[in-house]
Amino acid sequence: MKIDGARLLADLKALAEFGKSGRGVHRLAYGAEDRAARDWLMGRMQGAGLAAEIDGIGNVIGRMADKTKAVLMGSHSDSVPKGGWLDGALGVVYALEIARALREAGASAPVGVDVISFAEEEGTYYGTAGSLSFCGELVESRIDSARSVTGKSLRDALAGAGYAGRARARVDPARHIAYVEGHIEQAPRLEAAGKRIGVVTGIVGIRRYQVTIIGQADHAGTTPMAMRKDAGGAAIALAADITARFQKIRAADTVWNFGHIKFEPGAGNVVPAKSELLLEFRDTSGDVLARMAAAVEEAAAALRRAHPVGVEAASMMALPPSAMDPRLMDVLDAAAGEFDAPRMRMPSGAGHDAMILARHVPTAMLFIPSIGGRSHDGAEDTAEADVILGAEVLARAVERIIASPPA
Amino acid sequence: MKIDGARLLADLKALAEFGKSGRGVHRLAYGAEDRAARDWLMGRMQGAGLAAEIDGIGNVIGRMADKTKAVLMGSHSDSVPKGGWLDGALGVVYALEIARALREAGASAPVGVDVISFAEEEGTYYGTAGSLSFCGELVESRIDSARSVTGKSLRDALAGAGYAGRARARVDPARHIAYVEGHIEQAPRLEAAGKRIGVVTGIVGIRRYQVTIIGQADHAGTTPMAMRKDAGGAAIALAADITARFQKIRAADTVWNFGHIKFEPGAGNVVPAKSELLLEFRDTSGDVLARMAAAVEEAAAALRRAHPVGVEAASMMALPPSAMDPRLMDVLDAAAGEFDAPRMRMPSGAGHDAMILARHVPTAMLFIPSIGGRSHDGAEDTAEADVILGAEVLARAVERIIASPPA
Repeated sequence: MKIDGARLLADLKALAEFGKSGRGVHRLAYGAEDRAARDWLMGRMQGAGLAAEIDGIGNVIGRMADKTKAVLMGSHSDSVPKGGWLDGALGVVYALEIARALREAGASAPVGVDVISFAEEEGTYYGTAGSLSFCGELVESRIDSARSVTGKSLRDALAGAGYAGRARARVDPARHIAYVEGHIEQAPRLEAAGKRIGVVTGIVGIRRYQVTIIGQADHAGTTPMAMRKDAGGAAIALAADITARFQKIRAADTVWNFGHIKFEPGAGNVVPAKSELLLEFRDTSGDVLARMAAAVEEAAAALRRAHPVGVEAASMMALPPSAMDPRLMDVLDAAAGEFDAPRMRMPSGAGHDAMILARHVPTAMLFIPSIGGRSHDGAEDTAEADVILGAEVLARAVERIIASPPA
Repeated sequence: MKIDGARLLADLKALAEFGKSGRGVHRLAYGAEDRAARDWLMGRMQGAGLAAEIDGIGNVIGRMADKTKAVLMGSHSDSVPKGGWLDGALGVVYALEIARALREAGASAPVGVDVISFAEEEGTYYGTAGSLSFCGELVESRIDSARSVTGKSLRDALAGAGYAGRARARVDPARHIAYVEGHIEQAPRLEAAGKRIGVVTGIVGIRRYQVTIIGQADHAGTTPMAMRKDAGGAAIALAADITARFQKIRAADTVWNFGHIKFEPGAGNVVPAKSELLLEFRDTSGDVLARMAAAVEEAAAALRRAHPVGVEAASMMALPPSAMDPRLMDVLDAAAGEFDAPRMRMPSGAGHDAMILARHVPTAMLFIPSIGGRSHDGAEDTAEADVILGAEVLARAVERIIASPPA
């Protein structure tokens, strides 16, 4: 099949008009701009000869009705507030263009391409609600309880969008032999390494801890160091200890972040009575994550022994990593090789719909570079040549999958 | 001379009625309660046969007019908001009681006792304004510029109190052979050590630094550790490094405190773009303080080499330490010994009027225990027996100073 680069870019730019905000888009799930974009996408799918519908969660799915099996391709078309123009839209338009190109190539194989734009990936109400629904993992009680920052429920948003009451489309493992998602990298690794294609090895698991340390407020001039219950000094010691332990445990792509810290009451001459520390860490290996979680507990226990303070490390989030399919990784790699595209294997440090799909069908992701690593921001962009190369590599990979479907 | 313990306690309790707030007092400088307390104190001084007046800054001074020299004694009678009933009031009433007792003893020596209650020690407008004025260190422009948290100027407060335009009393090194101040400890060291008397060796100098670290916000999932400019991780590393350096430099009574820390933007999944750290340290040795200040600069320089962040350590405060007079320390120690009082030498970690006076006349301070170390709070208290013992030790010391004045 043959990618039409001009058509691909034109569709991306047309989609970016929905909710246009400066150079980026503001297209929150179930808002007017998001719904209009979904209607437009459904029309484009129908124009490509796909049987397209918008389902009860807002997923837009276009099926090649004449095929018994399909490579499912897509991503999401909603955005974060004042987000970038590519993000999930890229993977949706990639899927649309590849389905069109496959049609135009007159392929006769029984395996086609189905196209999906998942709803509500970004978490306006409940992140990856569309792919969770598609995979049968979204329970009704969650639709009732999930709310936006303004307090609106997901249930009300679906009713307001006119999606409530419709059937919710489901993945069909008998039909969908693979899920393949294209996406911008959202980081500067490919750019810094001089690569144009990233073959994703897995989507990281995420652990988040809220550490609370309870000490006692005292005059920081008159109270000797040995008589203090210093929640501030203890927090510094704990964070430094966790950092040292993580340095020993870490794999090549492990990341962690102390994103928030607070001392109370917060005055220069008062020994902190209480401190809070927000710690997040990510890796594609469940084993590495488990060892890091154990290190947090060990560091907290060591702190309790060394300092007269109370320490609690509460787990706030524990998302498991999602491995990408090894055979599909090889297919992506080989396809990139056919274009002599500089490429590397890398984890995805951010979540994607692919992490949900990977639990149900063989899944792969392909990254293209983000200029300056910018993402979730109006400045988000990718060179047009890289956008087109990504489509070509994905199209070649889909040809290979169709020619030799997974067992 | 003979201390009248019942009279001492009765005067302390009478003074605590001015601005009474629960178990403590709320007697802000130049407020109605503070002024009424000063009028009452002037009356009590006159009743003790002293020539008493309230001067142009609000200091209440009572002189033994028939003596050519005097041990100056006192402290301050203003309080912090919702403060304790003893604090500075203790030292003022100690001075009053000792002047009375000396009169009653019919002492004929040419050296007497002058009593002073300094104004505005606590900093409602400008901390230690009364003792600075008494020592000739308070410039007129500072009276114009000093303001309360509500924006009222010290100049307006003095006018409102009726003190403006009066002469401001001055220390007279030819007359005042020593300044001796009694005070509660405001910390739990004496109590923890089982001591009843603290002989103050010096009042600590204070250094305060505001450290600002500038990095770059990045996605904490997608940005590899090696590509980050992490202002949060850098702050933790810097605080841990400074702590380790201070541990090596510290003298026995050195203290430091990280009282405030902040990461921006403060989200779990965003690498901090900026961090702030408030560091304060205190010691009675100017040399130790200088070595600690150098350690802060060295740690900042090491951080700049190790992390791709900007680091600035801005000095916000650099108050020099005040040494107490060694001969007067020996006199206090010996006087406590005559009462078999368990005692220890210790620095004052908080500021006092004595730190100003020490720059002009030989100065000494005596501490009595604070129950539970509580201070600047309604719960502030001291056992009555300890209150009386403190007066007796001070009275004995004053007898010794009068008998053998400093050269």
